[in-house]
This record gives sequence, C-alpha cells and structure tokens, in this order.
Amino acid sequence: MGRIVMKFGGTSMAGTERIRRVATIVRRQQEAGHEVAVVVSAMAGETDRLVTFCREANALYDPAEYDVVVASGEQVTAGLLALTLQGMGCKARSWLGWQVPIQTDDAHAKARVESIDSAALTASMAAGEIAVIPGFQGVSPAGRVTTLGRGGSDTSAVAVAAAVNADRCDIYTDVDGVYTTDPRIVAKARKLKNVTYEEMLELASVGSKVLQTRSVSLAMKAGVRVQVLSSFIDDDAPAADTLPGTMIVSDEELAKIQEGLEMERQLITGIAADKNEAKIILTRVPDRPGAVATIFSPLAAANINVDMIIQNVGRDKGETDVTFTLPSSDLVRAQALLEAQKEPIGFHRLITDGKVAKISVVGVGMRSHAGVASTMFRALADRGINIQAISTSEIKVSVLIDEDETELAVRVLHTAYGLDAE
Amino acid sequence: MGRIVMKFGGTSMAGTERIRRVATIVRRQQEAGHEVAVVVSAMAGETDRLVTFCREANALYDPAEYDVVVASGEQVTAGLLALTLQGMGCKARSWLGWQVPIQTDDAHAKARVESIDSAALTASMAAGEIAVIPGFQGVSPAGRVTTLGRGGSDTSAVAVAAAVNADRCDIYTDVDGVYTTDPRIVAKARKLKNVTYEEMLELASVGSKVLQTRSVSLAMKAGVRVQVLSSFIDDDAPAADTLPGTMIVSDEELAKIQEGLEMERQLITGIAADKNEAKIILTRVPDRPGAVATIFSPLAAANINVDMIIQNVGRDKGETDVTFTLPSSDLVRAQALLEAQKEPIGFHRLITDGKVAKISVVGVGMRSHAGVASTMFRALADRGINIQAISTSEIKVSVLIDEDETELAVRVLHTAYGLDAE
Repeated sequence: MGRIVMKFGGTSMAGTERIRRVATIVRRQQEAGHEVAVVVSAMAGETDRLVTFCREANALYDPAEYDVVVASGEQVTAGLLALTLQGMGCKARSWLGWQVPIQTDDAHAKARVESIDSAALTASMAAGEIAVIPGFQGVSPAGRVTTLGRGGSDTSAVAVAAAVNADRCDIYTDVDGVYTTDPRIVAKARKLKNVTYEEMLELASVGSKVLQTRSVSLAMKAGVRVQVLSSFIDDDAPAADTLPGTMIVSDEELAKIQEGLEMERQLITGIAADKNEAKIILTRVPDRPGAVATIFSPLAAANINVDMIIQNVGRDKGETDVTFTLPSSDLVRAQALLEAQKEPIGFHRLITDGKVAKISVVGVGMRSHAGVASTMFRALADRGINIQAISTSEIKVSVLIDEDETELAVRVLHTAYGLDAE
Repeated sequence: MGRIVMKFGGTSMAGTERIRRVATIVRRQQEAGHEVAVVVSAMAGETDRLVTFCREANALYDPAEYDVVVASGEQVTAGLLALTLQGMGCKARSWLGWQVPIQTDDAHAKARVESIDSAALTASMAAGEIAVIPGFQGVSPAGRVTTLGRGGSDTSAVAVAAAVNADRCDIYTDVDGVYTTDPRIVAKARKLKNVTYEEMLELASVGSKVLQTRSVSLAMKAGVRVQVLSSFIDDDAPAADTLPGTMIVSDEELAKIQEGLEMERQLITGIAADKNEAKIILTRVPDRPGAVATIFSPLAAANINVDMIIQNVGRDKGETDVTFTLPSSDLVRAQALLEAQKEPIGFHRLITDGKVAKISVVGVGMRSHAGVASTMFRALADRGINIQAISTSEIKVSVLIDEDETELAVRVLHTAYGLDAE
C-alpha cells in the first residue's frame, strides 16, 4: 500500500469516452489499496485551439493573460475526470493550481514550480479521496495563473509526486515505455525495464520524446521514481504495480536492482537520433584570444543554444575553422547574427548545412568501460558513414553525420552494441 | 468622468473578431474618461458544450466539479478580451472570480454573491487599467469555484457595479433596449428611455427576456443604475453615455427625470406575454379548512412554482373548484403529484390546459390611477377574448387567456393604453 501519482496526456483525455477509460485505470490503483493523485493534460488539440485564440487576439500576447486562457483546458479535464470517478463510486475532487496551491515563479508561460503546499492534498488523499490536479498550471507570487510551458504536465506530475512523497509517479503515454532506440527505425528495439535519470535525460534531449526533459531533471533532483506506461491497456490489465513499463530510477537503485541479476549490466542503454540539428562552419577565423567569444556571445544573447563545438586545426598559420551545431529552427537567425558580426569576428566564409543528424549512444555503463567510442567509430566506418563532428559526456558519445544516413547508423550501432532483441 | 461597468453576452464574445468589436466599444468608454470594468460571458455555445461534457461524464453530476468545468468558458473570454485590449494599446488585466475575490455561498451551480472585495479592483481601475472579469463565476467559503446559474453574468455585472460603486452598469445585449412590448408582435412597439426596477422585474419575469431577473433584483437592492444597450452598434457610434438604450432606475430617479418633462407620465409602461404557462383545475374540492394546503404543499416541496391561484364559487354546497397556473415544463410532474394525493385532497376531477398564455400590463403609474384593470377587461372583451383568470399586483394586472389569442391581445392592449408609436 503506497501513495501513487498518475499522469495522463492529452490523447488519453480526448473526450468523455477516453476519460472513462482513464478513470477505470485510476480506480484500479485505488482498489489495489493506494492513495492516488492524478495529474491530467487538456484534451488533445485543446491547448492548440486556445493558443490560436490568443495569437488572433494579440500577436504579441501578454504571457500573463495567455496563461489565463490556456490553463482552462486542464481545468476542464480535471473537473471531468473527478465527475467520472464519482460516477464510478470513487470519492474524488479536483484541485486547481491555485487551490493546492502549486506555487511557481512569475515567469508566465514558462514558469518553474517553486513549492507545493501538500497539507490539504495529502489529508484529502489519506481520507480516501482521489485528488485530480490539472497539469501545466500553477499560481505566481502575485496570485496570478501561470503555466509551465508546453508539455509541462509531466513536470506537474513529478512535482506533485515529490510534494506528497509518492512511492511512484506513473506517466501514462501513447508509448508503453522507453526503448533502446526508436522502434520505427529498428524493429528489434527492446523495451528497457529500467533506465537512470541521467540516461533518460540524454535520451530525451537527443530525440526520444517520451518525457519532458524538465520533468526528468526534477525527478532526479527530488528522487522521484518515475514509471513510463501505456495508457492504451486492456480493461482487464493488472494494476500498474505489475505492468511492464519502464522505471526511471537513480544509479543507486539501478545497482541494487541489478545486484541479484546474473546478466552483466548492458554497456549501452540506448541509441538516440536527432534530425533537428544544423551545422555552421566559419572558415579562417583569426586564431587569437577572445575570437571564440566574439562568435558565441551574440548567439547566447539571442537565446540560441549551441550544442557541439569543434575548432579544427587551422589550414594557414594563425587561422582556424570553427564548426558548431544548433537547432535547425535557429539556423536562419544565427546566420543573420553572425553575418552582421563578420568584421569583429573576422571569418572568411560562413557555410551552413541543415541536412545533418546527431546520433548518440547513451549508457551509465560506459563510465567504467573504455572502448565505447571506438566501437562506435569503427561500426560507422565499416559502413562508410562519415563522421563530421564528435562530442562526448560521461555517459554519452554523440556524432554528427549526414541526415540521409540516420536510420542506417542507428541500426548499425544497435547491432554493434548487442542491443537487438533475440 | 465616472466609473462604468460594462457587460457583454455570449453572442458578442463569439470568436476573436467579435471580441475585437467589444474591445473597441470598451476602449471608447475609457477614452471618454471613465474608469472601466468589463464583465464577460463565455463564447456563445461554449457553456452548452461544457455542460454536455459534464452530463456525459456523470449524469448525476457533483455541482462543485460541474462548476470547475463550466466556469472555464468565461475564463477564456476574459483572458482574450484583456489580450485584445492590450493589443489596442489599453492597459488591461483579467480578474478571475477567486482573484477579485467574488465571494459566494456554497450553493454550487446556483450560488449567490455574498460579498466582493473591491479594494484591489478599484486600485487597478484608478490606475487606468481596464478590469476584465469573467461573469457567472465566484468562489465559495471553502475556496472552491462556484457559478451563479445560467445567465448569471448579468448578476455578476450588477454585483461588481455595486461593489466598485459604479455610476452605471451597461448591459450590452442583442436587443437595443427594453420595449413597450415584443416588437416582433407589435411593429409599433416603442423603446423605453427609462423603466423602474419593479417594472423591469414584472416585465422580465413575465416574458420580456432582456435581463436575468436576479440581476434586476440585485440592482434594485443595491441602487445600481442599469442601462440596456445593443452591442451591435456602429464602430463610429458615440460613447454609451449618449447612446439610446433603456435606463433602469429607481422610482425616485424616474420621478426626477420626468419632473422637467411636459408630457404626463405614461400610465402603463409595457405589456408582456408569457406562453410558458399551464393551467390545472381541480373540481369539487371539499370546502374546509386546510384543503388548499393539501393541494399546494406537495407542489412547493417539489419546487414547483405556482403562479395564479383562483378559488371559484362552489357549484354544490361545501365544494369548490380550485384553478391555478404553473410553468408548462412542470405540468406533467405536478399532475402526477396531485393524482397521487387524490384521496387526501378529495378532488373530483383534474383538468389540465397547456394552451394558455398570461398577458400582463405593467406600470408604476397605475399606483395612483384607478381604471387600469377595467380598461384591460373592456379592451379584451370588445375583441371577444375570454379571460380565464386574473391576478393583480401594485404595478401589474395579469390575465390568463387562450394561447392562440396571445398576439391579438397584446396588440389590442398596446393600442388601448396609447403605447403605439406615432
């Protein structure tokens, strides 16, 4: 018997019939003896509809009023789920962001949760009442409605789980877990039973879009055990405790889980591909102190997130080529900013390439093993895939390749690291 | 320079294009030098959509959760109007029911406003910020969302006007004022410049559906001057101060307004028709103490509002016929309740008639004039219209007639009391 926070996305909440299915899944948890809080998204499409209204009303909208409008979508589904649960004989009530309250900062439209007063919530849950909480919303220090940014309901769920000291935060999505790679690319991709927060962060931020990155960071910081599950399960399926989702845990917990297992820990946990990268090369940049700062300062000021940076060996004395990657969506803006700074930076030519992809192998196992990177380079070389750039972290090796070779590279690496399902 | 509360209904708020027109009307008031608060309804059709969701979720819905769902419609339009006003260069912000706060009792889905803390609101208005307030919603003593019942936005507007001590509450609707009678029945109906609260109450409750009855009662109690205006006015129209709507005022103010006028006060202000009436006759009820109580107690217990009651002279000794009217929608229920009580009541037959209409002539002028009722009876008799029942109040005479004769009766009376426009 524990305390569980469950979260359902927009597809699961799209219409009263689907909400009834969600209510069935929620009730099953309560019947299993758990105290339950549920965090819900707006009906699929509803937030887009509301955002469009805001844009039509005022193209340069005030984020405080935008929040008032868009937060209404989750308010509706929270009330409807509470009603549906009541209709099934469960005690339930909705708790709006300002009612809990879920205190955020005042950065409207992208607010951060600062604190959650869980006293009333836990008292209600302990009394057998299912707490239904609209995701995505909170309240600012000034008492105004805030929202956490698109996809913020995952973060709401983890924050609530941390606040009520939940045993687990179950995120129900339209996939049934985290895979070694995208199953649409590699048919033999395997679902992972466990993955660590850091691995999940690397996998999520490089393309495995299962959970909002912020929610994973928060879970790691607060030590919330997060489980990814499919909401499209049978009505007769068992309670989530025994469902085969993916559990996201700490390094320590993972070590404990694997202690009893005979099989050695997999070196690589998963492979991610990201096609939303673009490359910029600045040729013949003067090789002097401060040169790199003149390139990246204007980009940082414009909130453009530069990812990989490689400073090639100069062709001529005193000059060097600088290559870096950034989100494709920022390419045009970055190009304009840099062209405007051509004089102070002193580059010769600016070359762009939007047809690149970043392939990453991720795994906490590589901390204690050498040779992970060289296996990658060898496997790609054997298939004639050219590596344009490399970057590494403690638990990740990423390479930049031609976008057309994305799927081939992922399949080659999935096999090379022994991830293919039998 | 004054303080104005404006209220716009669902038709005026249906979509961003119409909201832009509303914003134009609002801005004009501010440009005229007024402090402005605006109360808005949900987009036309939206509340129905949300109510349908609630019914689908749980036929016997919990009104507290119902309120959470349906209050969202006004939240959306309030945010959108604030955004639109900002886009036009006005300072504006939305104030949700719990933010003002608009304190109500805890009778969810039909709550009554108990108090409004206007300090923050008036400070904001005094600073030149237009306050946009979602109608229909408030907050209960327990801090839950409440709604005031369908059409409650009129009441919200009047309550806010009372709280901020507004000089005027302008209700923008799809008609341009209150008429002497329904212009669809009598082409020569005239728009009234002024009407008293009591006249408006009588006109509204008997069929001139311009304002929610509760809002008029509240305006009377709080002494709020209410103006009914059309929201479908020209973009170039003058500010509402000089617009030709209908002003609803107290007896005293009306007397003051008319003091300077040469024309004598009209005896009758307007004529209302209500086809949603039904008649029940119970024949040969024993004429003994308590007999009437046995008839009406079960109806009252079932919340059925009985209107006219006539106890006819008995045909036989010790027996009497009892006739009364009630809303058509309650006829079947009332019939079942009374048939079940046939024994204790002791009536002979129960006769129903759903094809009746109530015609009322209303006017504060009749207080000081005799002969109003006899003019009515004579005019109807001259056209062969049979009167089935009569009831009177200080400022109203109502008769029950055959429904088929409704339009004829209204036209005849409109002429008889000299109301026809030249």
